[in-house]
Amino acid sequence: VGWFAKPSNTQNHTDSSHYLKDFLEEMKADKIREHLRKFTQLPHLAGTEQNLKYAEQIMKEWQMFGIDSVEMVPYDVLLSYPNESQPNYISIVDHLGNEVFNTSLAEPVPQGYEDISNIVPPYSAFSAKGQPLLLLCFSSGDLVYVNYGRTEDFSQLQREMGINVTGKIVIVRYGKIFRGNKVKNAVLAGAKGIIMFSDPADYWADGIQPYPDGWNLPGRGVQRGNVLNLNGAGDPLTPGYPAKEYTYRFSPEDGVGLPKIPVHPIGFHDAFRLLNNMGGEIPPNNWKGALNVSYRIGPGFTDEFKSQKVRMNIHTNNQVTRIYNVIGKIRGAQEPDRYVILGGHRDAWVFGGIDPMSGAAVVHETVRSAGRLLSTGWRPRRTIIFASWDAEEFGLLGSTEWAEDNARLLQERAVAYINADSAIEGMYTLRVDCTPSLHTLVYDITKQIPSPEEGEEGVSLYKSWHKRDNWTNDRDAPRISKLGSGSDFEAYFIRLGIASGRARYTKNTKTERYSSYPVYHSVYETFEIVEKFYDPSFKRLQAVAQVRGALIFLLADSQLLPLDVNEYADSLRKYAQSIAQLAQKNLVEMETYKVSFDSLFSAVENFTVAARDFHERLQTLNKLRIMNDQLMYLERAFIDPLGLPGRPFYRHVIFAPSSHNKYAGESFPGIYDALFDIQNSADPAKAWEEVKRQISIAAFTVHAAAMTLTPPA
Amino acid sequence: VGWFAKPSNTQNHTDSSHYLKDFLEEMKADKIREHLRKFTQLPHLAGTEQNLKYAEQIMKEWQMFGIDSVEMVPYDVLLSYPNESQPNYISIVDHLGNEVFNTSLAEPVPQGYEDISNIVPPYSAFSAKGQPLLLLCFSSGDLVYVNYGRTEDFSQLQREMGINVTGKIVIVRYGKIFRGNKVKNAVLAGAKGIIMFSDPADYWADGIQPYPDGWNLPGRGVQRGNVLNLNGAGDPLTPGYPAKEYTYRFSPEDGVGLPKIPVHPIGFHDAFRLLNNMGGEIPPNNWKGALNVSYRIGPGFTDEFKSQKVRMNIHTNNQVTRIYNVIGKIRGAQEPDRYVILGGHRDAWVFGGIDPMSGAAVVHETVRSAGRLLSTGWRPRRTIIFASWDAEEFGLLGSTEWAEDNARLLQERAVAYINADSAIEGMYTLRVDCTPSLHTLVYDITKQIPSPEEGEEGVSLYKSWHKRDNWTNDRDAPRISKLGSGSDFEAYFIRLGIASGRARYTKNTKTERYSSYPVYHSVYETFEIVEKFYDPSFKRLQAVAQVRGALIFLLADSQLLPLDVNEYADSLRKYAQSIAQLAQKNLVEMETYKVSFDSLFSAVENFTVAARDFHERLQTLNKLRIMNDQLMYLERAFIDPLGLPGRPFYRHVIFAPSSHNKYAGESFPGIYDALFDIQNSADPAKAWEEVKRQISIAAFTVHAAAMTLTPPA
Repeated sequence: VGWFAKPSNTQNHTDSSHYLKDFLEEMKADKIREHLRKFTQLPHLAGTEQNLKYAEQIMKEWQMFGIDSVEMVPYDVLLSYPNESQPNYISIVDHLGNEVFNTSLAEPVPQGYEDISNIVPPYSAFSAKGQPLLLLCFSSGDLVYVNYGRTEDFSQLQREMGINVTGKIVIVRYGKIFRGNKVKNAVLAGAKGIIMFSDPADYWADGIQPYPDGWNLPGRGVQRGNVLNLNGAGDPLTPGYPAKEYTYRFSPEDGVGLPKIPVHPIGFHDAFRLLNNMGGEIPPNNWKGALNVSYRIGPGFTDEFKSQKVRMNIHTNNQVTRIYNVIGKIRGAQEPDRYVILGGHRDAWVFGGIDPMSGAAVVHETVRSAGRLLSTGWRPRRTIIFASWDAEEFGLLGSTEWAEDNARLLQERAVAYINADSAIEGMYTLRVDCTPSLHTLVYDITKQIPSPEEGEEGVSLYKSWHKRDNWTNDRDAPRISKLGSGSDFEAYFIRLGIASGRARYTKNTKTERYSSYPVYHSVYETFEIVEKFYDPSFKRLQAVAQVRGALIFLLADSQLLPLDVNEYADSLRKYAQSIAQLAQKNLVEMETYKVSFDSLFSAVENFTVAARDFHERLQTLNKLRIMNDQLMYLERAFIDPLGLPGRPFYRHVIFAPSSHNKYAGESFPGIYDALFDIQNSADPAKAWEEVKRQISIAAFTVHAAAMTLTPPA
Repeated sequence: VGWFAKPSNTQNHTDSSHYLKDFLEEMKADKIREHLRKFTQLPHLAGTEQNLKYAEQIMKEWQMFGIDSVEMVPYDVLLSYPNESQPNYISIVDHLGNEVFNTSLAEPVPQGYEDISNIVPPYSAFSAKGQPLLLLCFSSGDLVYVNYGRTEDFSQLQREMGINVTGKIVIVRYGKIFRGNKVKNAVLAGAKGIIMFSDPADYWADGIQPYPDGWNLPGRGVQRGNVLNLNGAGDPLTPGYPAKEYTYRFSPEDGVGLPKIPVHPIGFHDAFRLLNNMGGEIPPNNWKGALNVSYRIGPGFTDEFKSQKVRMNIHTNNQVTRIYNVIGKIRGAQEPDRYVILGGHRDAWVFGGIDPMSGAAVVHETVRSAGRLLSTGWRPRRTIIFASWDAEEFGLLGSTEWAEDNARLLQERAVAYINADSAIEGMYTLRVDCTPSLHTLVYDITKQIPSPEEGEEGVSLYKSWHKRDNWTNDRDAPRISKLGSGSDFEAYFIRLGIASGRARYTKNTKTERYSSYPVYHSVYETFEIVEKFYDPSFKRLQAVAQVRGALIFLLADSQLLPLDVNEYADSLRKYAQSIAQLAQKNLVEMETYKVSFDSLFSAVENFTVAARDFHERLQTLNKLRIMNDQLMYLERAFIDPLGLPGRPFYRHVIFAPSSHNKYAGESFPGIYDALFDIQNSADPAKAWEEVKRQISIAAFTVHAAAMTLTPPA
């Protein structure tokens, strides 16, 4: 394998390279199909019996596969379910309070699944309940349409369109940002309820039929999802600590990130009905979706329907519920106290055909292949940990509680965390998001793995990927993105500072403009949608399995850790330039408030020199353990235990989502947020002080990280 | 040396034991005398030219001693000095505002130092200034006497004596708790100024003459000191980050821990004059000191002097000032990336005869001896770092800024921190405060070092110490205490979780009831007071040098780290029993609010088993590095990055000062403070919830620490 040959040809060769070949070749497309079929038969929402059954089955099969140990690790966390006897829905009511229209109570069940019970109807997990008193006042609710519900949308609504949403129900389309951010913005703006819908402009691919004839979202399909603002806290009642039996729990009113207003999701069929009679101004074009309505912003309906109001009937309950992680281990031969983790979730909103079982099937096959390799006499240098997380959909709970439970061990021992959520979200090419120090390893690995695309026999995955998604404005290589949040790597990367990455198959982002994939979090995420449309040969999933597998193999088995600190230096320079450029939009204020990025550029320069010197010393390494520790702890060096402002569990100074969108990874998030806040600040002098403070923290952190790369004494 | 022979006789023997003998024997009493003489000639307050000169001299001499590297590390921190043109003093003014009495502007200069300039007059560093406006309102200030100014004193004053100090000036005696806590309590109670005095009951030893004829505090002697409430933040303007040139600084109003009222210290000569005419009730006997006054609590003076008021004239300025640490290193041969640190401060209020130069002279001699040993071919297994900290007296600033600067390196690499403040505060026996895992090493070491006491030739320090201070209610061995705060180990131990300890010579605490030592922080801390009274032969300082030296030698040079985790288990059990017992005082409420310590006891039991198993595995160790890492990181496992409530930089869940006294080390400080707060809580249900939460955090932390001792995979 190429990796061994290149970056350091002295000590890093190993006799294990044929093991890597065996390991990757053992992963079979047909087996992945089998695993996926097996684990998508029944709905397995977190906290349900079926999800425990799958956990038990996974535990049993991992044991059969022959890895050293497998255990079930339970936690008792706050989950949220619809009330089975009082369905959630939204009504239009007339002036007498009669319901003249109600949204659907469920999605039409797909073919072949008609007899399945326990399909949870679409809902927004952790929505506040419509209390009787609240319902009363809700019966006079007027709708306001606020586009995607982003900070800038609310700001435009209030400042340019002059509309105050206090006491109104807002309706926003899904997409662009994490739904929890939309809810938070609605609460901040004073709304008393929020409805989210999937607009065809955002969840419909041109020329594709709706499921089951194609992979588009049917009009009555709905995206489920949690609407928390946890900022990495894990279980809302036990922030910072694992939710064990003896753990102190906050009362639900003090829980982290729970919205105070009702929230409900609908499909575009129902959305049309709600939007159709809306009155008020016609918005700018970029507020218009693809429904045949004018997207008037309200408030309320046109004169003709003025007396009609919208009512949210929400009876969802929060309850502390037991969840189960499955943890499997292969003990390291030489360095058992160094951990390489491959983790992904198992819980699904319904069947989880794509999210997460396409990923879980890949992990399952990876464990099977690793077990086979063990039986041939191989044992990795370092310990490998496989995890099947629970309750990811409810706020990354299983993975975060386990990270909290094991924080001390992970801090001192974890080499890397590879995430394994959905392995496919499109049919175009590979997508990798990872920390910069993994760039080189990802490129090296993908050169050794064949392209899964038809007509590309003999072509490497790297070449296939490079052709389809060239990182042109950065370099002539396949594009690699920053990690944001929204999946289980969060606690490992942003809280604990463990080098992390994820890989999946994706769409063509230049031509396919829909968010995630159309059936995302709907009942239509079935085994069949993968088998018929996304990956009939299962070769794309096989390729993803090989990428994820090779990553953990080489991280666990290479003598010298395959982390490239020069790549981190390069990336830091680009991030610094880009954040400084963002600030330049305010040149006058920068002068007024004496804001300078010089200290940050100087710190990056210092880091670059330390990284280069470090790599030079690698050529003559006689202190392998010491240098491996330096490589491992570089990512940890970017952690500030004080956390980002207001987000104590987001501690990574270089990477975190912006406060305005949990999905998007920003570089230098502290500076980014401070710059963002300037737009809305009533006190610019104070806001610019915060920018300066954040620049100083970033400069210090980069200097401190550079120090970790210098000789230890 | 005994250590090598006992705990694990397999791998821990080493050929270096003769080096230890050479190292200890090379430390000479006469040399320590020389060092002390040299560095106490002139006042060397932090931030002054003279303290930089001593830093340069230390740097030069350490270089000459032959250690590998020595560097000067500057920071720019907030210090506080009296205004040279407007002296600080307290007046009694008559109804016309005429000063009828003023406190002294300076202490009488001791014999032989009459020509010395730059003796800073007694002051409370970081006192608020008496602003003109404030002075005006101060001219009507009535005094209230509040004993030691403890939380319980203020509470007794308000609840039992019915006196409200809002708008009054409080006068309290020094002693029992850290002066900064007194100031905080006064502010919380609403006082507009606070005067602190040294009462002979607390600063006078029976049968001893005042200096220069003895070591008692003269009537005009005054204790200086800072009055901050930093809770580990370091420089008040740069909490969490090193105070470098590019570092963002808070504006002084936002600085951490700065008191908002004027504060001033006086001696008992002046205190007599202020207390003598006070009116109001006579307090209970335990409020009475040893002055010939009745200690009436006020408010204000007796009827005869009713029109007289007290005025505080304070013109002290805060200013950002450059300070200098000196950092010396000996590179480790086998494990250069493992650090053992010996650090103590250099800055003194005046000459620093005891505090800190008795300690600094000991460090100097340790460095000299280590340099000699290096020249004979020895090199320690691990890296040794020597530090001469600056600005300890202003809030542990030099050591904390360096810890902030190097936090990432220290977190991953520091094995232990040994503190070197004053090496002597009495003439009786040894005093050691350290983390429990160092107990065994301290006992082993002291058995190898001779007693410095006359008539004890051939007797070990251990035996001499044991005879004088038996830890009877704990075990039959010399007493070892918990670490509190108030010296430079704080950031290393309580913030970063590095195993720490300190050793010095002390008084007989059973018979000598004065606080610290009488001349503490006065101009009378001279070379002569040590030479004439505390240690004429300099053998006590030599013994302390040998204890501190042997600690760093064995921590740096033993193959297996000499840390005893069974001792930690034993101590945790005692601490748990003792904190549970404290809670039992409130049996009824414990029932009402369902408070149980079971989870904590169960966690301690779990830890005890893990510790025992760990020590068993040490017998057959074939993974030295792995087990050494486990030993090193055990202390780190007690760190909670979230910090203690309201104290983000105090992160050690097992040890921290109580919120009410910075000096006293409490075990399970989170629970301790929560129990303390119950007494004053208006909402007992809520207060008991906090107790339960803290028990849960403690139980989790002990479980998590136990996990770090189990086999890594």
